[in-house]
Amino acid sequence: MTIETGLKVMGMARVGEGRYRVEVDRAYREGLSGLEGFGWLTVVWWASQAGTWRKADLVLPSPYRGGPEALGVFATRSPHRPNPLCVSAARLVGLDVNGGILEFAWLDCAEGTPILDLKPYQPSADRVESPGLPGWCASWPVSVEASGDFDWSQVFTFQ
Amino acid sequence: MTIETGLKVMGMARVGEGRYRVEVDRAYREGLSGLEGFGWLTVVWWASQAGTWRKADLVLPSPYRGGPEALGVFATRSPHRPNPLCVSAARLVGLDVNGGILEFAWLDCAEGTPILDLKPYQPSADRVESPGLPGWCASWPVSVEASGDFDWSQVFTFQ
Repeated sequence: MTIETGLKVMGMARVGEGRYRVEVDRAYREGLSGLEGFGWLTVVWWASQAGTWRKADLVLPSPYRGGPEALGVFATRSPHRPNPLCVSAARLVGLDVNGGILEFAWLDCAEGTPILDLKPYQPSADRVESPGLPGWCASWPVSVEASGDFDWSQVFTFQ
Repeated sequence: MTIETGLKVMGMARVGEGRYRVEVDRAYREGLSGLEGFGWLTVVWWASQAGTWRKADLVLPSPYRGGPEALGVFATRSPHRPNPLCVSAARLVGLDVNGGILEFAWLDCAEGTPILDLKPYQPSADRVESPGLPGWCASWPVSVEASGDFDWSQVFTFQ
């Protein structure tokens, strides 16, 4: 079953040369008003570079040490999934509502990625105080902030 | 600009009578393997009941006390948005991979809502320790857990 509707593209990710921006199309810029003061946003993006997904990709070898040898796609954050919808919490460091520019401390998508939605990161909806985790990832960082200083090479079986 | 592709429906939300379930279509159930042990999931759903969105809805009167009188759509979590994509952190209380059943403590979508994606809630990607907030929502709950006991009637100008 599918939903036969096109997705509207709100803007594009402009990442590279140490900058992480979203440029919002003129048609949608007004919708940014009221974001002043939010420190983090949830960015929903379309992983246009993730490659064609096939049913055989439902379970793939796990890239993580110490866990199951294979993981179902819904147990991973891979952009290679049935609907290549990705959700990133990103720290907002600059906002120009009229110019349609959002600057982030970091954004984990590729240059030219279509942005489908932007939402305020609201702790009441998004910040789980004590999320339970399986043993194989229980020692991973406890927050997005802590994630930047973590040695991720110890987690992956290949880089 | 639009992305002209259908969205695959992974399954349906079955909510009501105090139960909050997602039933995953047989074709995608295998992808649930490896979710064992995760306490929370990020559920991406299509707000099929949100009504037709129009450009005039980019900025709407704010439903919140004490803030701006109007808010841009990207400063709200309303399901009524250009792409009705909603993202919910939900506590997983039951998992039947073969049967394609996920049971949640609560899920904030309507009965029959199409589910587009499921992801593990990973604190390293999703849990912001100290999200900054504008003054008008700075006193809202600091976590999803705290949200359940909060008196939301003090926040809304209408219910």
